Amino acid sequence: MHVLIIGAAGMLGRKLTQTICRSGQIGDSHVDRLSLIDVIEPPAPPAFNGKVSTVATDIADPLVMERLVATRPDIIFHLAAVVSAEAELDFNKGYAVNLDGTRYLFEAIRNAHEREGYKPRVIFTSSIAVFGAPFPAQITDDFFLTPRTSYGTQKAIGELLLADYSRRGFFDGIGIRLPTVCIRPGKPNKAASGFFSNILREPLAGLPAVLPVADSVRHWHVSPRRATGFLVHAATLDLAKTGYRCVLNMPGLSATVAEQIEALRRQAGNAAVALIRREADPLIEAIVSGWAEDFDARRAIELGFVADESFDEIIRHHIEDELSERQQL
Amino acid sequence: MHVLIIGAAGMLGRKLTQTICRSGQIGDSHVDRLSLIDVIEPPAPPAFNGKVSTVATDIADPLVMERLVATRPDIIFHLAAVVSAEAELDFNKGYAVNLDGTRYLFEAIRNAHEREGYKPRVIFTSSIAVFGAPFPAQITDDFFLTPRTSYGTQKAIGELLLADYSRRGFFDGIGIRLPTVCIRPGKPNKAASGFFSNILREPLAGLPAVLPVADSVRHWHVSPRRATGFLVHAATLDLAKTGYRCVLNMPGLSATVAEQIEALRRQAGNAAVALIRREADPLIEAIVSGWAEDFDARRAIELGFVADESFDEIIRHHIEDELSERQQL
Repeated sequence: MHVLIIGAAGMLGRKLTQTICRSGQIGDSHVDRLSLIDVIEPPAPPAFNGKVSTVATDIADPLVMERLVATRPDIIFHLAAVVSAEAELDFNKGYAVNLDGTRYLFEAIRNAHEREGYKPRVIFTSSIAVFGAPFPAQITDDFFLTPRTSYGTQKAIGELLLADYSRRGFFDGIGIRLPTVCIRPGKPNKAASGFFSNILREPLAGLPAVLPVADSVRHWHVSPRRATGFLVHAATLDLAKTGYRCVLNMPGLSATVAEQIEALRRQAGNAAVALIRREADPLIEAIVSGWAEDFDARRAIELGFVADESFDEIIRHHIEDELSERQQL
Repeated sequence: MHVLIIGAAGMLGRKLTQTICRSGQIGDSHVDRLSLIDVIEPPAPPAFNGKVSTVATDIADPLVMERLVATRPDIIFHLAAVVSAEAELDFNKGYAVNLDGTRYLFEAIRNAHEREGYKPRVIFTSSIAVFGAPFPAQITDDFFLTPRTSYGTQKAIGELLLADYSRRGFFDGIGIRLPTVCIRPGKPNKAASGFFSNILREPLAGLPAVLPVADSVRHWHVSPRRATGFLVHAATLDLAKTGYRCVLNMPGLSATVAEQIEALRRQAGNAAVALIRREADPLIEAIVSGWAEDFDARRAIELGFVADESFDEIIRHHIEDELSERQQL
């Protein structure tokens, strides 16, 4: 089986690549070819028993998409996106990559479908940014699309295209709306959501972290390990079960900052918690107040998507996946 | 004030043109220029005290949209669309007109906005086709977008673009999701929804009509007069009241076929009702069973949009607007 990952250099793309290389399969199918695409060249996986290509390219180009699809991948993970803040700052770039790039991919598949019946599985990562405040206490599976960013708008449009192309039979599409990924590995970044990860990752590494919002702030999280699990599950799920409504709110863990900190205390002690410094940032407070806090992701749970059980588990998995690996280097 | 109507040759476009020409204004503003655009040349209004241009053109062309926007209309009604059945049959044409044409219009406005601060009011007609079965008993204002046709998908994408371009300040956009227009004037057509109008319009003219579904079928209607009223109201509404959620389910009249027929009996007698012949059509029955039956359009009602009160009123208005005019010819 040939797997194409568009956006393979990103955090989730790299985790997914590792997972596929480790098992050598997706579901029961052996993966013998991996195509890894991103705007920067994705790292080649260290050990994979099959053909690998890594390519740096611009997805906002219909010819690039035609060429990728010409290699006839059986499974296509479309994870690539200009992220929220950048899509807000650069209107043209956000629409070019997030809307046009997605449409070029879908069109390239449709053309190949119409010529020769090609019909891959397409897994499209969407985001809870398709929703906008005001929210109910828990967002249900039938809550409406009201993005309040260009990024959220572009993701919502991608979802609609995915559903229409799937309904038409051009490919087997499934869209998954990811919670905020926490604990994000790597360095602190400037994303407004960064602190949710920073206040755990940095103290776990013995480093200080800043908390810019109140302890009472509630948010919707998924660990990198579970998010990768969503992608693999979406690649193998029987799509007869999703029907026309092929975009799903993923399950997650709704937790307050205070609950995150208490989990850190249980897993790493008071010394780790003491590394968190409170410094209110009105701008971040304002942005975060417009974000979803909790979901009732019933459909996805019934379809077998599995979320994290607690922040204690998220922290333990982070230590296993990131800190022990780092110590081995 | 300069008013541009894109889709001016269609039924609603012609009604809107007549309404504007009759009053010479929209809200309190005098209309001194009318630009009427469609894929076929719209009829010139019989009496209008100002400059009129009528143009046949293809809106799926970015240069056409640049040229239209270069005339700097103050109000733009965007009513043009490839309709549901055609967009389903001709995938490329539907996306070219309904998605690309809409985006070219919005982009042309954005370019003019960024160059010189141009900021018109844009009224975009959407459709209840953005919703797909299964439905709740009444569809509320926060029900999710689940189109089951390419037309519905394209309208939903147009709504999302309208909201994002409005949020960004490029224009003042408002989207209105119209119920099925009934009684549509003119000849019977092949639209699956056509019979809702046929069973009233034809008997009112002394002609036979076929009813292909059960009397118990319930649907969501608006008269041409009220639909035109929605457009004019949308052109003048204070958009501070809609906020980010600038696309509204229009109010309508939920009625069964039996209720339509009883209204016909009250307004035109048993002889008219006797002209309706029942002839079940399984294909139309199947299509209609996937349509919305009723809405709770609370937001639009609070914002002053006014629906028909009864099918008796719809029939009386049809007689006034269509049959008396026809007799004058």
